[in-house]
Amino acid sequence: MRAEIVSVGTELLMGQTVDTNAAHLGQALADLGISVYRRQTVGDNHDRMLAAFRSALAENDIVFAIGGLGPTMDDITRDVLAEAMDDELRVDESIVVRLRRFFESRGLPVLASNLRQAWVPTHGRALQNPNGTAPGLLFENCGKIAIALPGPPGEFLPMLANEVVPYLRAKAGGRTICSRVVRICGLGESIVEDRVRDLMLSSNPTVAPYAKVGEVHLRVSAMHDDPAVAARLCEERVSAIAERLGSHVYAYDDEALEAAVVHALSARGATLALGESCTGGQLASRITEVPGASEVFLGGVVAYSNAAKAAHLDVDVALVERHGAVSAEVAAAMAEGARARFGADLGIGITGVAGPGGGSDLKPVGTVHIALADGASTIGEQNRFIGGRYDVRRRATQAALVMLRDWLLQTRAATMD
Amino acid sequence: MRAEIVSVGTELLMGQTVDTNAAHLGQALADLGISVYRRQTVGDNHDRMLAAFRSALAENDIVFAIGGLGPTMDDITRDVLAEAMDDELRVDESIVVRLRRFFESRGLPVLASNLRQAWVPTHGRALQNPNGTAPGLLFENCGKIAIALPGPPGEFLPMLANEVVPYLRAKAGGRTICSRVVRICGLGESIVEDRVRDLMLSSNPTVAPYAKVGEVHLRVSAMHDDPAVAARLCEERVSAIAERLGSHVYAYDDEALEAAVVHALSARGATLALGESCTGGQLASRITEVPGASEVFLGGVVAYSNAAKAAHLDVDVALVERHGAVSAEVAAAMAEGARARFGADLGIGITGVAGPGGGSDLKPVGTVHIALADGASTIGEQNRFIGGRYDVRRRATQAALVMLRDWLLQTRAATMD
Repeated sequence: MRAEIVSVGTELLMGQTVDTNAAHLGQALADLGISVYRRQTVGDNHDRMLAAFRSALAENDIVFAIGGLGPTMDDITRDVLAEAMDDELRVDESIVVRLRRFFESRGLPVLASNLRQAWVPTHGRALQNPNGTAPGLLFENCGKIAIALPGPPGEFLPMLANEVVPYLRAKAGGRTICSRVVRICGLGESIVEDRVRDLMLSSNPTVAPYAKVGEVHLRVSAMHDDPAVAARLCEERVSAIAERLGSHVYAYDDEALEAAVVHALSARGATLALGESCTGGQLASRITEVPGASEVFLGGVVAYSNAAKAAHLDVDVALVERHGAVSAEVAAAMAEGARARFGADLGIGITGVAGPGGGSDLKPVGTVHIALADGASTIGEQNRFIGGRYDVRRRATQAALVMLRDWLLQTRAATMD
Repeated sequence: MRAEIVSVGTELLMGQTVDTNAAHLGQALADLGISVYRRQTVGDNHDRMLAAFRSALAENDIVFAIGGLGPTMDDITRDVLAEAMDDELRVDESIVVRLRRFFESRGLPVLASNLRQAWVPTHGRALQNPNGTAPGLLFENCGKIAIALPGPPGEFLPMLANEVVPYLRAKAGGRTICSRVVRICGLGESIVEDRVRDLMLSSNPTVAPYAKVGEVHLRVSAMHDDPAVAARLCEERVSAIAERLGSHVYAYDDEALEAAVVHALSARGATLALGESCTGGQLASRITEVPGASEVFLGGVVAYSNAAKAAHLDVDVALVERHGAVSAEVAAAMAEGARARFGADLGIGITGVAGPGGGSDLKPVGTVHIALADGASTIGEQNRFIGGRYDVRRRATQAALVMLRDWLLQTRAATMD
């Protein structure tokens, strides 16, 4: 089965909104073994939407339309998709009732524009939307399928998982694609590819590299009629890659570096505390994004000023005066202070120049010191990250996570010796 | 002038990467008055890339290709775009020299695959890439223009700003689009649209609404041959909107809510400290993402455990036992503790259940208490946010920023009475 995704919205073309929905849909279709050869993005314009839907329907079995189901005047996906599918919309009275109840229970007026959301396909049906007012739409006509989904991710994602995926799984059958992602830190893209180049020559499974901020991903995809064979082919290739890249492989599939580190801390029974300056809480925020982080993360202090570093992380004022706030010595003192204050096994300190201001010849923007204290000793590294404020902060928290992971690997190896 | 964007990469179709580059390019083209009617996304496949480039070139003056310029085997944009543009690539010896120097200075081997990046158009030229090894490519042939840009955002964005925009500004001339974004908090999308519905009927300027997490944006775009007239039309419409929505308009264009709040604190000369539990440093991270935040932000404590709330925010243990860690009382104590500890004018405390675990009938996932202490009094609010852990945390930090902004507006109004 072959599909095309048409994302609708002038805000997408003008770059005001980034199309995360299409990425999520692409992942779901890949996992179902449904091929996507093209994606189109068009503005909220009748003629161009119609042309996009028609060309997509001509070349594919299923077409997905994302966005343009809302109550506002420029939301015309419902009508244009019906036209492309030769369908006449009908009113679904049960949706009218639900819409009235929704607005009345909130003390809001029922606007005429809201009631357009009760129009559904004659050949097809509405898809439930418990998280918003706009139902999704499923058109089935003349052997073609069209599915319209709402644009807000909080409505789109549950509808994809709860309505669309089960429907497609029942439809699809046949060939299965099994995909896995090998996540690698501490090696650049060229070196990773050089080590697995021969594995990349095969067309089944395929191996494709993607460079990310401070890490590289390899996506392995195997295709077979028998799901068990597809899974075996995929696993064998993943194992071969893991063997070549060793401990640089930090996780698989959706597990982010912060999740891998939280799980490793948890397995070890080790607790962590943070003292952050230039990253301003981003490392704490990344770590606490992981469900269950509270088991290993005791807390952190964001200390921008020298006074705050002294008062809340016990950094000696004389040390700051001697070496400057951005120095290996202050990073170490912040790590030790955070560790002691929260009574944690490990403490991390980060201080640097995130920019755009604050740089000097000696300490240009991008200079970041990171330290890790474990009670017995304190290790540190100096980095010169490139990029603007956003990049420098992100690379700094990434480097801190890699440092923490290396410490966990090394001390585990030492224990096992 | 009319343009189409073709994003290249199987990882985009499979949803492993979100296409932020195309969004940035869309914004830049909109600001230059260059219309984009369609965007295509295709995988790393010769035939499909060629079809996409050819259909885009047939219908537009300029085609942008993003991605596929790297050193790996599946990076074939250079060759396919040359084919679509009827161009023969030639070796640029100066790039060969630069590539050799780049790799040798890092002690890395010069791989043959890296040298493919020295191939440039015969009818056209390379675009400088100081942030990576792959130069961009500019093809000019038979009245059509094609521009290939590298996929990594750290290389793409500077090349867009420093090479592409100046080139296009020289080419474009003629009609100008002036666009502005009005950013609104505290009102839902339907209500915003209802208040400005008549303004949305005009086709020049256009007014389009976009719903975001906890806020709504209205994009106003005016078009005219005379840039000054386009700007005037746009400003008049923006003023009319601002008048109708009053203090719900928090900022314009790219200024995020956190930036608006930091600037308002700065104008007021007020300082801030934070005590975060369920948001785990995200509010501190959002605030410190704003350049110059150090002027108003004194610091924060991330206190997950009850012990940490007591030790680092002076929250009375008896209070936690009586009301629970997720309660209005504990949020207030955290706000007051953060304020006192850092000696700030204002303190914010946030405690809640971000999920997926930790919810109960009385305090389900999404329950978040936020408090603001100003020394004279402490105000608080209870929220029931919908969505998963990511959404709940994001909505909580958004609500805290809105609360802080409301406080600044009210006390300013009170002072002026």
